[in-house]
Amino acid sequence: MLNFAMFGAGRIANVHGQTISEHPDVRLVYVVDPVQQAAETIAKKFDAKVSDAATVFADASIDAVLICSSTDTHADLIEQAARAGKAIFCEKPVDLDINRARHVADVVKETGVTCFLGFNRRFDPTFNALHQDKLAGRIGNLEQLVITSRDPSPPPVEYIKVSGGLFRDMMIHDLDMARWMLGEEPVEVHATGSCLVDPGIAQAGDIDSAMVILKTASGRLCHINNSRRAAYGYDQRIEVLGDKGMLQAGNHRENEVRYLGAEGDVTDKPLYFFLERYMPAYRNELRSFINTITTGAQSEVTIDDGVKALELADACYQSLQSGKTVHLQSSECESQKEIPFAAADQSVKVSA
Amino acid sequence: MLNFAMFGAGRIANVHGQTISEHPDVRLVYVVDPVQQAAETIAKKFDAKVSDAATVFADASIDAVLICSSTDTHADLIEQAARAGKAIFCEKPVDLDINRARHVADVVKETGVTCFLGFNRRFDPTFNALHQDKLAGRIGNLEQLVITSRDPSPPPVEYIKVSGGLFRDMMIHDLDMARWMLGEEPVEVHATGSCLVDPGIAQAGDIDSAMVILKTASGRLCHINNSRRAAYGYDQRIEVLGDKGMLQAGNHRENEVRYLGAEGDVTDKPLYFFLERYMPAYRNELRSFINTITTGAQSEVTIDDGVKALELADACYQSLQSGKTVHLQSSECESQKEIPFAAADQSVKVSA
Amino acid sequence: MLNFAMFGAGRIANVHGQTISEHPDVRLVYVVDPVQQAAETIAKKFDAKVSDAATVFADASIDAVLICSSTDTHADLIEQAARAGKAIFCEKPVDLDINRARHVADVVKETGVTCFLGFNRRFDPTFNALHQDKLAGRIGNLEQLVITSRDPSPPPVEYIKVSGGLFRDMMIHDLDMARWMLGEEPVEVHATGSCLVDPGIAQAGDIDSAMVILKTASGRLCHINNSRRAAYGYDQRIEVLGDKGMLQAGNHRENEVRYLGAEGDVTDKPLYFFLERYMPAYRNELRSFINTITTGAQSEVTIDDGVKALELADACYQSLQSGKTVHLQSSECESQKEIPFAAADQSVKVSA
Amino acid sequence: MLNFAMFGAGRIANVHGQTISEHPDVRLVYVVDPVQQAAETIAKKFDAKVSDAATVFADASIDAVLICSSTDTHADLIEQAARAGKAIFCEKPVDLDINRARHVADVVKETGVTCFLGFNRRFDPTFNALHQDKLAGRIGNLEQLVITSRDPSPPPVEYIKVSGGLFRDMMIHDLDMARWMLGEEPVEVHATGSCLVDPGIAQAGDIDSAMVILKTASGRLCHINNSRRAAYGYDQRIEVLGDKGMLQAGNHRENEVRYLGAEGDVTDKPLYFFLERYMPAYRNELRSFINTITTGAQSEVTIDDGVKALELADACYQSLQSGKTVHLQSSECESQKEIPFAAADQSVKVSA
Repeated sequence: MLNFAMFGAGRIANVHGQTISEHPDVRLVYVVDPVQQAAETIAKKFDAKVSDAATVFADASIDAVLICSSTDTHADLIEQAARAGKAIFCEKPVDLDINRARHVADVVKETGVTCFLGFNRRFDPTFNALHQDKLAGRIGNLEQLVITSRDPSPPPVEYIKVSGGLFRDMMIHDLDMARWMLGEEPVEVHATGSCLVDPGIAQAGDIDSAMVILKTASGRLCHINNSRRAAYGYDQRIEVLGDKGMLQAGNHRENEVRYLGAEGDVTDKPLYFFLERYMPAYRNELRSFINTITTGAQSEVTIDDGVKALELADACYQSLQSGKTVHLQSSECESQKEIPFAAADQSVKVSA
Repeated sequence: MLNFAMFGAGRIANVHGQTISEHPDVRLVYVVDPVQQAAETIAKKFDAKVSDAATVFADASIDAVLICSSTDTHADLIEQAARAGKAIFCEKPVDLDINRARHVADVVKETGVTCFLGFNRRFDPTFNALHQDKLAGRIGNLEQLVITSRDPSPPPVEYIKVSGGLFRDMMIHDLDMARWMLGEEPVEVHATGSCLVDPGIAQAGDIDSAMVILKTASGRLCHINNSRRAAYGYDQRIEVLGDKGMLQAGNHRENEVRYLGAEGDVTDKPLYFFLERYMPAYRNELRSFINTITTGAQSEVTIDDGVKALELADACYQSLQSGKTVHLQSSECESQKEIPFAAADQSVKVSA
Repeated sequence: MLNFAMFGAGRIANVHGQTISEHPDVRLVYVVDPVQQAAETIAKKFDAKVSDAATVFADASIDAVLICSSTDTHADLIEQAARAGKAIFCEKPVDLDINRARHVADVVKETGVTCFLGFNRRFDPTFNALHQDKLAGRIGNLEQLVITSRDPSPPPVEYIKVSGGLFRDMMIHDLDMARWMLGEEPVEVHATGSCLVDPGIAQAGDIDSAMVILKTASGRLCHINNSRRAAYGYDQRIEVLGDKGMLQAGNHRENEVRYLGAEGDVTDKPLYFFLERYMPAYRNELRSFINTITTGAQSEVTIDDGVKALELADACYQSLQSGKTVHLQSSECESQKEIPFAAADQSVKVSA
Repeated sequence: MLNFAMFGAGRIANVHGQTISEHPDVRLVYVVDPVQQAAETIAKKFDAKVSDAATVFADASIDAVLICSSTDTHADLIEQAARAGKAIFCEKPVDLDINRARHVADVVKETGVTCFLGFNRRFDPTFNALHQDKLAGRIGNLEQLVITSRDPSPPPVEYIKVSGGLFRDMMIHDLDMARWMLGEEPVEVHATGSCLVDPGIAQAGDIDSAMVILKTASGRLCHINNSRRAAYGYDQRIEVLGDKGMLQAGNHRENEVRYLGAEGDVTDKPLYFFLERYMPAYRNELRSFINTITTGAQSEVTIDDGVKALELADACYQSLQSGKTVHLQSSECESQKEIPFAAADQSVKVSA
């Protein structure tokens, strides 16, 4: 039986609380959150105790921590947990500042703890099956990748302001998916974007619609499109083309009912949003994390994956501002220049 | 917290053990099965104790029993449980003998306990959504119902011999579905059948392929087809036609991956069999049963549903033998004649 | 260049006029119709002359006649054309009276002319491809056949009265499809029906909703359902199950546009009715007929196919009235008794 | 009755010969091609005479010319036909040199003749229906457009060398589609490309895989991907996202047969290539051209559409070489610099 502590008491903490409660080999012991009421609610729901960080890190019986708190706390908590020898599961991103993220990655490596980044989409049954089919050679050599990723509706502008911007907050999932699918690192990034959904987002210095092209060293091409709005629900699709064929990962629906009437041939829209679509992914993700802890297996997602996805997001901002293709190299990380997200001078400190 | 006892330790007992373990308000206390080893395995898996019927019925702390044991034990266990005042969840059928089933129903009614029949398909997310759409008037007045129900592969002939035959063992689920969807009782039954899958099934006196037509008093028509084999997996579909349109309930797949290659445009087959397809239905079914116990709500499936489905199955055998349409009336139940399933003189006692 | 004469000037005559005009090797020379205005319109449209039967049959340059006139003229015209040595293409049915139809078939055989019955659905690209896949062994041995055939809306009651009834007018196409797909003749027929769409149809002695089961000597089962109304358009589907799998023939749509919005995931309804759905079938059918004439190849549909489909339709009426399965044998044709379609005593003479 | 003359006797000339032969109001009078044998074959097939350009342009009875000859003859023939007062239907492109194309457009405008550019995809039933749905407001304001356009297999390298390159030869159709769908002109173009299919294409200085992003003044985003190979056939899809929903145009299949077996749930691949997919489009396109001639209606595609698509293709090459976004303005056309397609110094003269 593994003992877990959770930082955070919001929506995603609830998701992980639920998947923990369903798992026979794990127990949620502590919940830590600055909002006492929220911490108590979630602790009660999942039979845990409200506590604080110091207690968690000092308690030798705690095997792992789940970091589901606000983005600005991730880096510190990862470092503290790593130094306390706890296995770490952290929601993305590591940090909004790439240099801070790199430093955290260094700490993790020094301590040798498991640090699992919450790129949950890798564990979605459909994306995972497509990835396995690709690895099994079903499309031959991958040539093109097209990722469509659209939210049903935009978040409040206040959230946008502290989010790090569309590329770091939203597309970062797709950038991770791209890395995972492409089988090699992108070496060129070109990004475009617009504000078409909510003018308040433009006023906050961000975009709500984006199209990006990535290219790898061997010439593989990847397109990602994002929108903060899709009237028909959460749109999460992937298409890979190879010399032997194409694989497509489609959206999930609530059920398989189809209606034919005077108005057409109608099935359900896609599931509404990430909680609906990715609940199985959250379950699979937790199992993967637990498996890593209990068997010592290689973690399926590492803090380096978090760092690299953030580098790509930063490159998107560079390209968006300059109108030029950004070339990524191994040395590119150090030389990266200032990132043009207008909100950067607010709560989101972005330097390079 | 409700306390449950379970009779049976086979495949379906495992399913219910699992759904109970996931439910926060229920605890499995006892497992009863003549095969000690099986009882111990399942008791251990779900943190319960191995026990016997007498103990279960005598234990006042037990709120409900789940009867997942062999068909020939159902009638006795329901009667005992009813007299002990326990809420009852029983897998179909009540009994293979319609008169015995009717007697059990009488006992249940006398005692006034909840007796929930395990017609799990009513709780399948797709069939349930279709049913709700129908009730909401989406197709207007229902005119035709087409039920397709095919197993991936036939059971062993030894099972066939004690099963009660295709109509009572397999189509009984579809007959219940027909009653549930049609909104009125069938008054005419016509059945045809063949043995096309396994000659051993014919030797056991049964069929493995069947087509049936039901008709209600208002003239609604229903077709059901069954096969003991479908090379592509468990085929469970429903189609309802009304004056305003049609609703179709399709099969479920493992994921939404689609492959296009030189060999065509390929998606997954339907899920393999009932455990795969109906796991969500089993969860929903248990929740419905628990809700009936805790709130005193009307049970969504009653022992009468079990009796009526069995009457239809018996009418199918009558029609199959006579080549005539069987007319069902309120008085039909009493006058029903001998049922032509050849296996009836073996372990399956069927009289009327 | 072949010279054709056409009897009839209605909707289906227009269809054949069009397919003839598109074919490089055929010329429409004569149009014959009692309604002079209709004959002139269609003759003008397709560059033909209005004429009369005597002229057509006496003109040695005419290679073939297309009989698209009213049902009660079919038998006489086929006999006259056969005796004049013309190749014959005749819309179904041969006649509404099975004995008259059999006599016509005898005349055709005596004269040795080609007589092609217009069972156009055999030439539908989708049904034809399914049939070829079946012949190629894709499903192995055929075990079950399910035919769904629903019109978008009922014809006027006046038409119903002279139509021969649903089984002879509408389901006859499906009965032909069943014979074509099953690979052996049905030996048992069971029919049920209701009047759910238009009470006027019941008053005219007919039904508008039907379900039928056919069985062949080897035990293959076939279900056909018909409705005179489908709010979503012309519903023409076929499903065949064999030991190796299942083939489904779906409806055709106008285009491949799909809309996802707040109201769901919507594609077009099926094409509206037979002219829309079966236009390619009419083209293919004409080509097949021309090929038979020019190459002397075996006709793909013969007058015997017309006779046998009518026998099945008559058996459906027998079963509907008697509530019993009708057993068909080679000798059954002669002994067939009076057919219970109420309109029979009107313009439709049906005796046996 | 309109009289047409056709330049060219290849595959696309055959297509137009066929659609002309099916149209009741048009007659093909002349065929002109430097290869006498080819000209004779096609002339015989469609009942026309072999002739030469001088005769065609001097014959006052000729209403229109179809230019289906090799690309390097288009500009001269358009100019001659315009000066002879003939209506013109010309396959894309006008010319591979943008300045030459602009000059031709000027000549057309001076003479005032109809000049219809063969962007056949606008007339595809599916794309056309999607376009109409968009105009009807079904998706609200268009925000994103995704065009997928992949050939089943690459052409010979010899063809690539004289083709003008992927952007001018292949993507030009998609660039026209983008202009047609976006509802405003792109002002930014970013192009990437690789050679992944055939190394011989790289040796000829071209690419065979491409991804492009376009942006309009109002911020609409468009992605186009191209590949010279798709193992599953011709892949021609469009997706438009607006604030009210999404429309998708899917591929067409031969028929609606679906197979379910041990290997999965299989339907046909998309139709093989442009002749199969776009035959209805060629028919509709000819009808539109004829309608323009006979009614004097505005042409649905003009020579300016040809010029503007070519400008976008040139901008793609600029962006591909420079790695920068190309900004298009009204003045951009004159200032456009040298185009980096390596084959330009061969038979394809491209200067700017």
